[in-house]
Amino acid sequence: MKFLCNYGKLLFTDLYEITMSAVYFYEFKDTWGIFELWVRNLPEKRGYLVFCGLEFAVNYLLNLHFTEEEIEFLKKHPSLSHIGDQFFEYLSGLKFTGNLYAMPEGTVFFENEPVLRIEAPIVEAQIVETALLNFITYNTSVATKASRIKYASQIDGKERKIVEFGARRASDFLSSIYAARASYIAGFDGTSNMLAGKIFKIPTFGTMAHSFVLSFKSEIEAFKKYIKYFPQTAILLIDTYDTIQGAKKVKMAGKDIKAVRIDSGDVISISKEVREILDRDGMEKTGIFVSGDLDEYKIYQFIKNSAPIDGFGVGTKLVTSDDAPYLGSVYKLVELRKGNERKKVAKFSKGKVTYPGAKQILRFEENGKFNHDLVISEDEDVKGGERLLIKIIENGNLVYNLPDLENIRNYVSKQILKLPESVKDIYNPSKYEVKFSERLEKLLALARKEAI
Amino acid sequence: MKFLCNYGKLLFTDLYEITMSAVYFYEFKDTWGIFELWVRNLPEKRGYLVFCGLEFAVNYLLNLHFTEEEIEFLKKHPSLSHIGDQFFEYLSGLKFTGNLYAMPEGTVFFENEPVLRIEAPIVEAQIVETALLNFITYNTSVATKASRIKYASQIDGKERKIVEFGARRASDFLSSIYAARASYIAGFDGTSNMLAGKIFKIPTFGTMAHSFVLSFKSEIEAFKKYIKYFPQTAILLIDTYDTIQGAKKVKMAGKDIKAVRIDSGDVISISKEVREILDRDGMEKTGIFVSGDLDEYKIYQFIKNSAPIDGFGVGTKLVTSDDAPYLGSVYKLVELRKGNERKKVAKFSKGKVTYPGAKQILRFEENGKFNHDLVISEDEDVKGGERLLIKIIENGNLVYNLPDLENIRNYVSKQILKLPESVKDIYNPSKYEVKFSERLEKLLALARKEAI
Repeated sequence: MKFLCNYGKLLFTDLYEITMSAVYFYEFKDTWGIFELWVRNLPEKRGYLVFCGLEFAVNYLLNLHFTEEEIEFLKKHPSLSHIGDQFFEYLSGLKFTGNLYAMPEGTVFFENEPVLRIEAPIVEAQIVETALLNFITYNTSVATKASRIKYASQIDGKERKIVEFGARRASDFLSSIYAARASYIAGFDGTSNMLAGKIFKIPTFGTMAHSFVLSFKSEIEAFKKYIKYFPQTAILLIDTYDTIQGAKKVKMAGKDIKAVRIDSGDVISISKEVREILDRDGMEKTGIFVSGDLDEYKIYQFIKNSAPIDGFGVGTKLVTSDDAPYLGSVYKLVELRKGNERKKVAKFSKGKVTYPGAKQILRFEENGKFNHDLVISEDEDVKGGERLLIKIIENGNLVYNLPDLENIRNYVSKQILKLPESVKDIYNPSKYEVKFSERLEKLLALARKEAI
Repeated sequence: MKFLCNYGKLLFTDLYEITMSAVYFYEFKDTWGIFELWVRNLPEKRGYLVFCGLEFAVNYLLNLHFTEEEIEFLKKHPSLSHIGDQFFEYLSGLKFTGNLYAMPEGTVFFENEPVLRIEAPIVEAQIVETALLNFITYNTSVATKASRIKYASQIDGKERKIVEFGARRASDFLSSIYAARASYIAGFDGTSNMLAGKIFKIPTFGTMAHSFVLSFKSEIEAFKKYIKYFPQTAILLIDTYDTIQGAKKVKMAGKDIKAVRIDSGDVISISKEVREILDRDGMEKTGIFVSGDLDEYKIYQFIKNSAPIDGFGVGTKLVTSDDAPYLGSVYKLVELRKGNERKKVAKFSKGKVTYPGAKQILRFEENGKFNHDLVISEDEDVKGGERLLIKIIENGNLVYNLPDLENIRNYVSKQILKLPESVKDIYNPSKYEVKFSERLEKLLALARKEAI
């Protein structure tokens, strides 16, 4: 994972993580902090989320360090220069020596469910906050959006090809490969992004651009030249001048064209007309591929209106998750440990209450479908249900086999089948039931009483 | 700029850029393509955009190359393996040998105005599409959002401190430093992001987290310990348990506290109450800093309602530009050149019309304010107005001094002053007038007639 050039570099953090760490270092030497990461409220249009980005978080923790250059920067920082060499020396040797518990990557989850827990000396646990939230939030946003798009694309029970096309509108090259990976996990067939193809071994696909068609004397010449070089894989873009006229030229370019692409206009009526033209011209096997600001809502409407579409290229609205551009992800201290002492903590800021103590999540099924989840104290003895949080890193060492993308993809697909249909509704998802154990409710009441 | 580890690496592109390039390579050896990059329609809530990301695009073009590993990947790619060694050899030595014209970074611009133009051998001009759109789109989104936030923060004529807090919710570490840089350019005072601070020399600021307060036996102890180590810079977070009670404890922590932070609740009424408490306790100089899902709309309301706030930390909604999470940026072929021949091209896809030929933009002022822009053919002779597109790269060489961040920041600030107030309205911006020259309209009509 060398390509992620900032891997493990601790300077990717907020200043306050370092100032707080300084205080912890001098005041709290043997205290461990237990932090959990969860999403507070699901966006209105999200009935579930797909946990994504764990592999990056794990690699980050395993490689955690400050470079010498970073330490020099800290020493000269106006807020830190007075803080004492002992602290900088400590930071120079800092590694992650704690534990990570997490849901397996690809797990479907809901609001207020911790997806990961860090148990570590408090400086280590605090200083990774910024990066952990960063890895999980965006990847989860995109995997979730992609899962909804995948769901909409087969709403009539028919499988259609979906390719991720968002590299140009992602916020940078790294986001673009995150997005390709997250959408592949969620069921996409591939990406147009070559870098993602190389790094994650995701299949890559492509068509042609309007600029290509414009470069030739005529549309038909552009088609013919492309086919000359790419006879097997050519997908001809037919809407540069006039989509219907474009469709009529396809037969002149060759009989075995893989597909045509439509990128504009009233897709439902145009795709039907194009299908008729292709069929009339004896090209029943030539597919229709559609792109252009697509999302789950448009795709759903295409299919409900029987548009004869065989595949979709989805970019901008996927990689920006435009109808829910962020998640209210948080990383909060829930417990302090020192020797045998354990102090479970909670905060009560308005609308931002947290339950105290390390937790576990039990998922209960009924008739092969997910029925409800129960969040319990980690050490609580409750029978039944599947335990979602498993140990990934123990005392700084990886104790878990990170699954490959194909495995994660299958895992996601199986879970989506188990999700109640109403929770998957793209327009108005119903709320999946997440209960908190009586013990947790009591702990919260207790913490509230003790708060000073 | 080594930190941007993918700098210049050409594999960050879409497959179709490479397949099209193969056809160009074999068919179009001496043809140059002229491409322009612009934003089609401004999002509803955007009266203007701030051009950002040019420095990254320039460095990308100057360092453009395929690595050996990348070439090996291409050679084995199922869509490309048959395409011939000549092409791969050409790609191995590929550099950018063309010209780049662009608006200076930080220029305010409007819909359908080309912000940059590439003139290069057509393969070079085509293959950079994905990366150029990627660099410009996100950076411009964030700079624009930040500019609106800055504007709202001083709507009563009083300057307030604004710090970028979005690292955790940005889509990855690179986006996070892009966002810190873009918002600094747009007038922010700094960032919490240490990596951005180091790389771009942006001032970094921080406060403390709820976890810090929770780590101590009492809120007051947390305050005292923090001040012990950071007496000059401490900003005490007072809403962990109860904001009003928290405010009352500040005087016990010390008299010269820089500021308190409020991160939740009804900020308008709470900030007034907190101000009263601080003043009553003789802490008139202690500022009030507010954070928590802020954006230009909330900040505007705070100030309109006379909330006594001295500074803002703005994160999530800035780095995701949540009310306009993407821009309709496009990169389109407008002209082909071969020897002395010039062919101006245009596409007519529904709702996606482009004007043919290389262009220039003239900005006209009246009474010290921007009055309107006129888009003309590059070679058109029109008097007056400021020419916005300047030469940055000529035959692959940098011929322009990239300004430093402070200069860009000043440039943005001066332009924002010149923008009509109605265009800056954050709720309902009026449309700035952008005209297209008669010559361009004629060229478009002509191209439409000739389209086959």
